Formats: sequence, C-alpha cells, structure tokens
Amino acid sequence: MLYLIGLGLGDAEDITVKGLEAVRRCGRVYLEAYTSLLPAGREALEKFYGKELILADREMVEQEADSILKDADVSDVAFLVVGDPFGATTHSDLVLRAVNLGIPYRVIHNASIMNAVGCCGLQLYNFGETVSIVFWTDTWKPESFFDKIKKNRQNGMHTLCLLDIKVKEQSVENLMKGRKVYEPPRYMSVNQAAEQLLTIIQNRRLQGEEPEITENTICVGLARVGAQDQKIASGTLHQMSTVELGGPLHSMIVTGTMHPLELEMLKLFSVDSSTFENNAFQRNT
Amino acid sequence: MLYLIGLGLGDAEDITVKGLEAVRRCGRVYLEAYTSLLPAGREALEKFYGKELILADREMVEQEADSILKDADVSDVAFLVVGDPFGATTHSDLVLRAVNLGIPYRVIHNASIMNAVGCCGLQLYNFGETVSIVFWTDTWKPESFFDKIKKNRQNGMHTLCLLDIKVKEQSVENLMKGRKVYEPPRYMSVNQAAEQLLTIIQNRRLQGEEPEITENTICVGLARVGAQDQKIASGTLHQMSTVELGGPLHSMIVTGTMHPLELEMLKLFSVDSSTFENNAFQRNT
Repeated sequence: MLYLIGLGLGDAEDITVKGLEAVRRCGRVYLEAYTSLLPAGREALEKFYGKELILADREMVEQEADSILKDADVSDVAFLVVGDPFGATTHSDLVLRAVNLGIPYRVIHNASIMNAVGCCGLQLYNFGETVSIVFWTDTWKPESFFDKIKKNRQNGMHTLCLLDIKVKEQSVENLMKGRKVYEPPRYMSVNQAAEQLLTIIQNRRLQGEEPEITENTICVGLARVGAQDQKIASGTLHQMSTVELGGPLHSMIVTGTMHPLELEMLKLFSVDSSTFENNAFQRNT
Repeated sequence: MLYLIGLGLGDAEDITVKGLEAVRRCGRVYLEAYTSLLPAGREALEKFYGKELILADREMVEQEADSILKDADVSDVAFLVVGDPFGATTHSDLVLRAVNLGIPYRVIHNASIMNAVGCCGLQLYNFGETVSIVFWTDTWKPESFFDKIKKNRQNGMHTLCLLDIKVKEQSVENLMKGRKVYEPPRYMSVNQAAEQLLTIIQNRRLQGEEPEITENTICVGLARVGAQDQKIASGTLHQMSTVELGGPLHSMIVTGTMHPLELEMLKLFSVDSSTFENNAFQRNT
C-alpha cells in the first residue's frame, strides 16, 4: 500500500492520529521536500515518528518514482507531504504510476494553506481562482497573476496568492557547467509580493488603465499559518509592502467584496486600525 | 483558552495529534453538530478522546455562546468542528465574541471538504467560486448556483458544489404551533443535485438559452471523502443522476477546462470508461 499522508502546516504534532499510525507501520517513509516547508524540520519529524525519513526532492519524485514505489504492492510505503497531498501541489503523477503498477494507494488528508487561510475570517466560498506570484528576474516580469486577481475582484471574490518558493535552484553558470551546486533556498515574502503588485499598478497607470486594485485595496498577509508563531496582518496593499511578518512561508490575500462579519474578523489583525475606518467601504465602491 | 479544533472528515482518528492533546486537556468539550456530519458518531469520538462531549446545535451556538465561553479565560474549553473550523462554515461569531470577552483562542486546523476534494485529481487552483446547492421545495426553486457554475466554467474553472444538509428542521405545522419537534435529518445526494441541475438546463432551453452546461458535461460525484469507504465517481452530469454512491455526505464537482493529468486521474473513477473516450475533449470546445 502507498500511503500519501498530509502533515498539516505547523509542527510534527500536526499529523493526524491515523497518519501517525500509518507512518509507524511503513517500511520506507519519504518526505516530499520541494514544494513547501515544514517549520519543524526533518529531525524533529524523525524523532516524533521514530522513523528515518528519506528526503524526496523534485528530481527523485520525477525521475526515480519507481524506486519510491518499489515493493509497495507487498509492503507499506509512506509519502509525506506538508499540508495535504492534494493541496497546492498534487501528486497525481505518483498516484497514476502506482495504479498502473497495480499498487493500491490511500490518502490521509490534512489541512493545507488552501483551506487554512480561512483563519483570517474571510470565507472560503468567497474566494475565486488561486494564483501564484513568482519571483521576477531582470528579464522576466510576468503580470498574468494580476489579471486573475482583477477578474476575481470584479466578481467580488477574494484571491489567495501563493508566493514563490525557490528550492534547489541552480545558477545559470552552474547549470551550464553541469555542476549540481544549488543556490540557497528563497521564499517570497508578503513585502516582495506587495512590491511586485504595486509595480504592476504603476505600469498599468502608465498605460492609461485605472486599475481595479490600488495601493489602498485591503489585503491580508499571512505567515506560518498553523504554526505556534503564525502571524496575520490586514491592511492596505501599500501597508503590506512594509509589514513585518518574520520568516517563511508567507501567503497573501487580495480581498474582493467583504461581508460585515469578514470585515470584523479582519479588524482583529489590522496593521493600523484607522485603515479600516477610512478604507473598508470605499473599496466596495 | 478557547480551542477551535478541526476533526477532519473521516473517523475519530482523523483528529491531529495536537488536537487530541488539546481535547484531553480541556475541561469542557463541545461538538458542533449542525453543519456537517462525522460518520464516526459522537459515541465513537467520546470513547477515543476519553471525554464527554456536549452537543452544540445551531440554537446553542447562536443563542448560548456565552455558556460555551464561560470561564474560558481561566480554563481550557474546546469547540470541535467536523472538517476545519474555518472550512465551509466559519465560526467567526464565536471567535469575535471570545476576543471581545478577552478570551484568547487558538485554531487547530484539519482537512475540510474545501481542500480534500483534490483527491479526485482536479487541481485546487483550477477551482472557481464554491457554490451551495439547496433542496428545492414545491414553491422555492432557486437557480442562482447554476449561473455561478456557468461563470466558473466560462472561465475554465471547476466548481465544487456543496450539497444541502437539513438538520433539526421543523415542519411548518410544528413551527407554527411552537412545538420543538424536528424532522429527520436530510442530506442531499449527488443524484438529487444532478436532477436539479438537469431541470435547470431544461428550463434554460425552454427560454431559448443554449446552456454552457449540458447532460454531457463531465462531473465528479464524491461521497464520504476522507472516510474508509469513500467513493468517487466521474462521468457525465446525466450519469451523476443515477450513480450509486451510498450514504451521506455527498459533494459534486462540475468540471471546467481539464489539464491532461486531471483527465487521467478522473478516468480512474469513471462510471463508464467509454464516456471519457467520447466526451472528454468535446467539452473543451
């Protein structure tokens, strides 16, 4: 049996009781280590589970999937994923490969950022399409996510923005020389995401567009959701460019039309309570 | 401290290790019992937690919230919610009331239907707005959810349809006589939801509209997601009107534009594999 087990978002104890029992029963336990980050770290997990974990980076999952699935038809193998196994990144490839090999699989779900963002008080059924905001480079500054946020907002919907993660990236030089030397991991902050959005707004104004989203649009910055030290900050997009939220992972929400109860909840997390007095209803006009 | 603890979707063991520890520490433990249904049932939870649970129905949460929060500033109280505390139904009211009383609160997340639907292989970031399909009555047959599904589909997005739950409903007669006698609980099935959608499609055709969604649109029926006996079935909307999925809770997805990998996953669950051969690409045209 292949178990795909969600670890949730915080520390080792965010695994479900069912998930923990499955991990302890499995012969080999892989930890997916390229699409997210569990603040706890591998050692803490190993200690809590009483099991050695095999780190599965992107190369391994994509190129050596058969080694992960080896003997899973006759023994139990676990594949651990931060959040939910079918959260922001799905592991359909691995599932399809298992099914084709006649290996039964089972999913043990957990919270992912896709549902845990509800903790800020914005209602999940008022969210439109989720977008990813990628790190801009000197030569590549895509703006397509902005148009998706705009469309959601025009429909009155909030947008969850997942912020870029660069893990095991190679510099162009190392890539060209075929050296498997990797850059330090980078995680986009709410500040950086807000800066990129503000730049796009300026660009659009230069093109004569009056953007649907402005510096004054109410946003929510979230850091380390589900962890003991999670932080939530609500305020204008401009405030998001300077708010202090600490270490990764960060996410950001651009709000659409807010229900009064949603607004009450957001006020609990306001960077500056006067923002909501001046701003909250203006944005619905 | 007020703990809002998600129970996940399956049985007692779907609580997180952290959640279980909090439950065992708390003086009073409430179980929210009106927006969802844990297949396990209350007794199984009580046995597993080693705690007596106080059932909190809608009346209690809305009218006696202060009794739930009593002494939570000096002792620990748990409020258990099937799925995630901020999933399909948020408990913002209770949180705001706690904050106003100076009671600290903590959320312990878990999977909810809002993220666990990813198990069918459709990617969560390809979902648009979630809709609720309500039971029609003789005199009330709203169609507004259809237009939201249509809009999502026009944008290429999938739609998660949450299906109606009627718990502790009173008949008109009992309501008028002020008798607290309740009807048996009712849970909408995928068959019923599909029937209502098919009726709307017929209505729209009579009005001269060529609906974006037809009998042949690919849908996914899901039952008891996260439980040991979960069932997933993919096929046309017409097939959804007769598919056998067993007991509650059910949800349904109306697909938008599908990525080949999403399609491969859906084929694993097809009611009739020939449907996908004939139909799958037609719907993207």
